[in-house]
Amino acid sequence: MELTLTPLEFARRTRRLYPQREAVVDRDLRLTYEQFFDRCDRWSSILQGMGVVKGDRVAYIAPNTHAQLESFYAVPQLGAVLVPVNFRLTGEDFVYIVEHSGAKVLCVHADQLDAVDSVRDRMPGVERFIALEGAREGWEDYEALIADASPGFERPEIAETDLLTINYTSGTTARPKGVMITHRNAYMNSVGTLLHLRIELGQRYLWTLPMFHANGWTYTWTVTAAGGTHVCLPAMDPARVFELIREEEVSWLCAAPTVLIMLANTPERVRGDVPSGVHVVTAGASPAAETIERLEGDFGWTVTHVYGLTETTPFITVCERRPEHEGLSTRERGALKARQGVELITSGELRVVDDEGVEVPWDGRTVGQITVRGNVVMSGYYNDPEATEKAMGDGWFHTGDAAVTHPDGYVEIQDRIKDVIISGGENISSVEVEGVLLRHPAVLEVAIVGVPHERWGETPRASVVLREGETATEKEIIAFARDNLAHFKAPTQVEFVESLPKTATGKIQKYVLRGGASAVSRQ
Amino acid sequence: MELTLTPLEFARRTRRLYPQREAVVDRDLRLTYEQFFDRCDRWSSILQGMGVVKGDRVAYIAPNTHAQLESFYAVPQLGAVLVPVNFRLTGEDFVYIVEHSGAKVLCVHADQLDAVDSVRDRMPGVERFIALEGAREGWEDYEALIADASPGFERPEIAETDLLTINYTSGTTARPKGVMITHRNAYMNSVGTLLHLRIELGQRYLWTLPMFHANGWTYTWTVTAAGGTHVCLPAMDPARVFELIREEEVSWLCAAPTVLIMLANTPERVRGDVPSGVHVVTAGASPAAETIERLEGDFGWTVTHVYGLTETTPFITVCERRPEHEGLSTRERGALKARQGVELITSGELRVVDDEGVEVPWDGRTVGQITVRGNVVMSGYYNDPEATEKAMGDGWFHTGDAAVTHPDGYVEIQDRIKDVIISGGENISSVEVEGVLLRHPAVLEVAIVGVPHERWGETPRASVVLREGETATEKEIIAFARDNLAHFKAPTQVEFVESLPKTATGKIQKYVLRGGASAVSRQ
Repeated sequence: MELTLTPLEFARRTRRLYPQREAVVDRDLRLTYEQFFDRCDRWSSILQGMGVVKGDRVAYIAPNTHAQLESFYAVPQLGAVLVPVNFRLTGEDFVYIVEHSGAKVLCVHADQLDAVDSVRDRMPGVERFIALEGAREGWEDYEALIADASPGFERPEIAETDLLTINYTSGTTARPKGVMITHRNAYMNSVGTLLHLRIELGQRYLWTLPMFHANGWTYTWTVTAAGGTHVCLPAMDPARVFELIREEEVSWLCAAPTVLIMLANTPERVRGDVPSGVHVVTAGASPAAETIERLEGDFGWTVTHVYGLTETTPFITVCERRPEHEGLSTRERGALKARQGVELITSGELRVVDDEGVEVPWDGRTVGQITVRGNVVMSGYYNDPEATEKAMGDGWFHTGDAAVTHPDGYVEIQDRIKDVIISGGENISSVEVEGVLLRHPAVLEVAIVGVPHERWGETPRASVVLREGETATEKEIIAFARDNLAHFKAPTQVEFVESLPKTATGKIQKYVLRGGASAVSRQ
Repeated sequence: MELTLTPLEFARRTRRLYPQREAVVDRDLRLTYEQFFDRCDRWSSILQGMGVVKGDRVAYIAPNTHAQLESFYAVPQLGAVLVPVNFRLTGEDFVYIVEHSGAKVLCVHADQLDAVDSVRDRMPGVERFIALEGAREGWEDYEALIADASPGFERPEIAETDLLTINYTSGTTARPKGVMITHRNAYMNSVGTLLHLRIELGQRYLWTLPMFHANGWTYTWTVTAAGGTHVCLPAMDPARVFELIREEEVSWLCAAPTVLIMLANTPERVRGDVPSGVHVVTAGASPAAETIERLEGDFGWTVTHVYGLTETTPFITVCERRPEHEGLSTRERGALKARQGVELITSGELRVVDDEGVEVPWDGRTVGQITVRGNVVMSGYYNDPEATEKAMGDGWFHTGDAAVTHPDGYVEIQDRIKDVIISGGENISSVEVEGVLLRHPAVLEVAIVGVPHERWGETPRASVVLREGETATEKEIIAFARDNLAHFKAPTQVEFVESLPKTATGKIQKYVLRGGASAVSRQ
């Protein structure tokens, strides 16, 4: 017997078995799973009444709120396709994504109404504009519609290869690409997450990660599958994070390393007491060993490093703990945890390959590109067969990440393929240089990019954010790098900056530092 | 991207990531995963050379040995179908199963060679007879063939809905039925097991459960997926079980409650020291609360009760631990753990329904039949469309188990539908009466069956095995039952027996106690 593999199955089971468990906490609102799914059903019923049918796209521009979470059930259970848009983008981006996806209904949070209003005449395909909060002229009121709705609607047959969401990668010079995620993709990712990360029944999860970003790494469904509670955090604020961890008894959160650095460096007077035992899942870049040491050693938290891309739903590696790691020192464990790790039991086959597609030796030195094939790989880019062919035409998805494989099979990213600096014929991993400079006591954040050099072709330049109250000179930074690295890898230029340019999800935008020449192909 | 969901994927990943971990311990033999899979490949290569092609059946009659474990990889990776036969059956049964399955190759352990030789002229479809151990005239030598083989063979394309195994239920008056398990079925069961039972990387599993029985509850693949070690136990022997737990640092084992009773009651002089921390998974019948108390309280083990049938690959419920169970006393926890529990996250939808197919109320009292639909349900009975239609023709698999659903959603089996005793118009659950009598200090094992009664239609009769050195009279047993049960449920007859008739997997054969009138439809 085959039944559709879909995250909607988690909703069915959790509603049946845990109707009285707390589903969502969002500011003053608390909903049990019965209440939460009743709201989802009412919204599905309204969308169906608006003419949304199987295959139609419904777009959302919203931070982490209960309404955004509801979209991950209300839209797919109609067989419709959710398009969760990065709310930090500009009006121009909104126009492109909404029109490219062909969304019929657009649901927007109060904070983004102005941005959308300024461009709404350029969204002719949108039939209904819904304000999730703060409804005003020209907007239908989400809460009023739900209050009046009946929860009954027709559930269409859904195949597991049907589209579940389209997630747009952040584009800059290049246009954003729409990543097509199927029901089966998301189901398999959630199962892999539960299997490797082991959320216990009823544990509480804090939404530090944006839900729109790769569907919140599918925690929008995974937490529900575990009968856990979604604690919403609409905007990143370290003091509020620590407050919610304490007050809501949070035991899980996901965040990019930049957010972890922020949390690790929050002064005690701001953060207050830190409860131990929080499980942190991090991805998007390698967390610095120092950050891990701080969170694990000082806070008593556990950090698990995973890796993936929007195109892979997202997880394709986990830095799993092995019995032989027991005896490692905190520093050795930190260095190990900075690695991306090994493929999940359910994520498929992963290989680091050279330009000919041959797997590189497991020597920890030979750099190749990470490629993957498996049930978490997207079905393609929406309406973009050329980009799809380029990324996965040979049956393997090419991540664009340059990595080595260590003798134990652990993959470690050296750089984005296009961020590798080639200086005097030698490859320099910007990530390696950054890791060294982060150990300098005055350095809070750092990014290395290659800049043109007459003699060497390229040379590394460091952009450094200093810690509050600390000072350092260009000369000191360069000397520190030369003391801890092969000399050719040391930066030859250092600029001190107030902050680093970042994407909505906390990734450093190196193309900006380089002068905006190239595109960031991922969120 | 869709890749085949198959347990062979676990083999691929484990061989790649953990080639040097110990795969199998079988008496004096120890194999790493690299060695183990090399042997599997050699055997596949030989089978392919013998003409075994995709869809062909290969049957095994063997206890828990490395060769039996190898069959779970070597046969399916050819696209062929494994038929693991209960080695405790008779020559007549072997003839029926081997011929019904159409097996082309038959692999037999030394202990079963005589039984097969006595009937081999009635197995005209078998082209090759392989002795896994103890080869002699008329038998090809498994080890000699492997030693001479090359590991190369052609891997066919396998679809996830292709047949992986055919497991024959134990038949008595009725013919055994061949349960068709697909690659997807077994994959989904293994994933669900890993997700709920949480075997850690590299943990060691003791094979107390026969591998042939529902494919060892798919632990043949699940342990491999976890990079764990299979510790083989060819024959059940309590002293040897405790010895292996100590010497091989076993932390997991699966067993029917009858085996757990045996372990719990093994005298200290026989069992020696008992290491704590062993995880026990039990199914096949409700373990008595007393047994759980003994294993958890005295031994410091953890008992998880799961439930399923060969037809459901097998797990469809797990008695999960919930946060609200923290405060329970050992006795309350024991009683709770005797329940079958709730559906797994990945096993599909489960309902206890009345004769009209309507779900019974969650009141802990109303008895109905357990039905299930999901990705772990078999594709049907081999060459038996009539039995398939009867079991699952309406889209739900009917388990034949009578159960109630408690207000918290936990399902508790009362009986096999056909073992429910109807006395004076009242339903009596034989399982409930057995649970009470097991609390009598002199009772080691007990089975209740309904026997004809002139006035009441049926009346409960108890068959009792007394503990060593203990005595009790019929009158005492009946009085004990009446003190602890509604009087109409108390047995009116008691017979004292040396042992209870059991199936190969430890289930009590009630039809024998009743006088052999009906069939046991499951292993």
